[in-house]
Amino acid sequence: MPGHDLPFSAAEYARRLDLVRKEMAARDLDVLFIEDPSNMAWLSGYDGWSFYVHQGVVVFHDAAPIWWGRHQDANGARRTVWMDDAHVLSYADHYIQSKHRHPMQDLAGMLRNRGYDTKRIGVELENYYFSAKAFLTLQAELPNATFEDATGLVNWQRAVKSDEELVFMRRAARISEKIIDGVFARVKPGMRKADLVADIYADAIRGLDDAWGDYPAIVPLLPSGADASAPHLTWDGRYMESGEATFFELSGCYRRYHAPLCRTVFLGTPPQHFLDAEKALADGLAAGLDAARAGNVAGDIARALAKELKAAGIERSARAGYPIGLSYPPDWGERTISIRDEDDTVLEPGMTFHFMPGLWMDGWGLEITESILIRDTGPAECLCNRPRELFVKD
Amino acid sequence: MPGHDLPFSAAEYARRLDLVRKEMAARDLDVLFIEDPSNMAWLSGYDGWSFYVHQGVVVFHDAAPIWWGRHQDANGARRTVWMDDAHVLSYADHYIQSKHRHPMQDLAGMLRNRGYDTKRIGVELENYYFSAKAFLTLQAELPNATFEDATGLVNWQRAVKSDEELVFMRRAARISEKIIDGVFARVKPGMRKADLVADIYADAIRGLDDAWGDYPAIVPLLPSGADASAPHLTWDGRYMESGEATFFELSGCYRRYHAPLCRTVFLGTPPQHFLDAEKALADGLAAGLDAARAGNVAGDIARALAKELKAAGIERSARAGYPIGLSYPPDWGERTISIRDEDDTVLEPGMTFHFMPGLWMDGWGLEITESILIRDTGPAECLCNRPRELFVKD
Repeated sequence: MPGHDLPFSAAEYARRLDLVRKEMAARDLDVLFIEDPSNMAWLSGYDGWSFYVHQGVVVFHDAAPIWWGRHQDANGARRTVWMDDAHVLSYADHYIQSKHRHPMQDLAGMLRNRGYDTKRIGVELENYYFSAKAFLTLQAELPNATFEDATGLVNWQRAVKSDEELVFMRRAARISEKIIDGVFARVKPGMRKADLVADIYADAIRGLDDAWGDYPAIVPLLPSGADASAPHLTWDGRYMESGEATFFELSGCYRRYHAPLCRTVFLGTPPQHFLDAEKALADGLAAGLDAARAGNVAGDIARALAKELKAAGIERSARAGYPIGLSYPPDWGERTISIRDEDDTVLEPGMTFHFMPGLWMDGWGLEITESILIRDTGPAECLCNRPRELFVKD
Repeated sequence: MPGHDLPFSAAEYARRLDLVRKEMAARDLDVLFIEDPSNMAWLSGYDGWSFYVHQGVVVFHDAAPIWWGRHQDANGARRTVWMDDAHVLSYADHYIQSKHRHPMQDLAGMLRNRGYDTKRIGVELENYYFSAKAFLTLQAELPNATFEDATGLVNWQRAVKSDEELVFMRRAARISEKIIDGVFARVKPGMRKADLVADIYADAIRGLDDAWGDYPAIVPLLPSGADASAPHLTWDGRYMESGEATFFELSGCYRRYHAPLCRTVFLGTPPQHFLDAEKALADGLAAGLDAARAGNVAGDIARALAKELKAAGIERSARAGYPIGLSYPPDWGERTISIRDEDDTVLEPGMTFHFMPGLWMDGWGLEITESILIRDTGPAECLCNRPRELFVKD
């Protein structure tokens, strides 16, 4: 192990590598190349904002994993991964955004030199950072290899959190609470939205005395009024207005671990349809939390929620949540399970989700959500502890 | 045109579409599908944090462009793009992160229904958001189409900035100056790094009275001491120490336009090798700025810089800059031109670059950079106005 501090114990990294190798064996894979930065960090400890160029972790059965990336980022790898320096390999800078060269030519050369060019290689075909061109280049360079789609292979191993991971997620949850408390304390009519976001960021990054804040994988989202009918608009320089609702979709982040928390503020007196939706959502959340038990399936949560919403006349087609944990931009979800009717994944103790039944209606929006942990027995635990209600302020 | 405010004039969007269509014609493309969020925003006005799911803008010669994306994000599209609502199309939520379906099946259906399934279709093979699986799915769904690699087609049209764009970039530059001034005012030994970052974010987002700050496409980078040998490590909860240098790689952002500015702080008395490197870098930047003239090529800037660095005994292999402008995470570069020896792209008035000769040395790092504009005549203009020197503070 290197001289620097790692966020997790050696046993924890060994546990992760073991899980991945078992799944590789089950799929008869000799080599796994992962480019997803969340998977890279989870397996190797690597942490840096360098995922805008090609890099990855290569997992073998018969040798330690290799961090592979841009030459100038190898310094960062040596300072963050648990593997020794002999397992940090890099490619020259002239491969970067070149018309003539592609970094995958270098990766292919490395695999060829080590005798893996006729093996079965897993790659993440559906991933932000493994481009179509990367795959085509790797195929062309290694014509005798067999490529298998290993999208989500590592992500699925991340679903059940260890105790060490839950410590981080609970710290993230404390930061989430701090952010939302700050919003409620400051928000008022006439406040420029960008100023509110400046405070949100400051709270998120300052974190707590014993838990500095990392950058969340999604920026704060806080659309108002009719803009709140769209879930993903970012802020601007307009002013908070009386008579409008604004939802706040936020997460604290501790060492890349997230615990999202969404709440909605109404400035002024909310109309009845808003209060009705609030009640339906609170009932739906309570029913969903009760269904979020080990042994049930993800779809059970969605159905419990939908039943309460439907009773209040609300039909909702979007999924109602996703697994959370360690993440890099552009998403804090793990992209495996979805809380929706068709998902029959069995819930296991230690799984964590953002239970997220956002309502994006015609001309308005309402978000009240919870980050949840599936327990050994009983309903899910909410990682944050804030009232599940609309926040009304004059 | 829709009822909402657009960041640019109708003439500006028409100019952009015209440029893209001309290049499509030059490459004999009937259809262009762009998934890069920067290209989407530049062409259509679309702005939202929804690029973690598949979406895109489809450009035709014989019809207006189409925004295509997730159902819940169509509300955001209708509120941000210049095309009318008939040109906003969406797919159902059960395509999201599904084991059974892929959003590209929906896109293929749309293209088939409109008679483009036997045409020549350009796609961005090397892009964060167009996955390998997306390409394979599109190919399988449209077996009679011809796919061409259109990576960078739109990016290259963005290289020369319009006057309207330069107004935004100058606002971003004012925000960059404000951020770096704030760092210099606040930084001192014993300050927790996360607290410094909290203030950086607050300054960046608060922006100026007439220019609210948008989220930069890269988070603040500020490694200290030996960590500064690695260019892309993010912050932590440690404390600023005397006797160490910290570089600050930052950018203000105004409505997605960037003007990065990097400076280095030394707390205490810098050693001679640091002062020598500072002088070499200042000389190299001055020489590079003088070479950054319309009619010269990108490589001329790199060579002018390298000559000065070499005279001081510094060999640098990484590229020394890239074009900047409108960007979404994970990168604020445009991924076309590189300021390096082999790049013979002719510089044109209106091109903007981050001239970025970072020094990541053995055990320390130094960054002094400029965002620059190529002028009609004479050397480049620096968009920010701050001394090009090491900032020393006790």
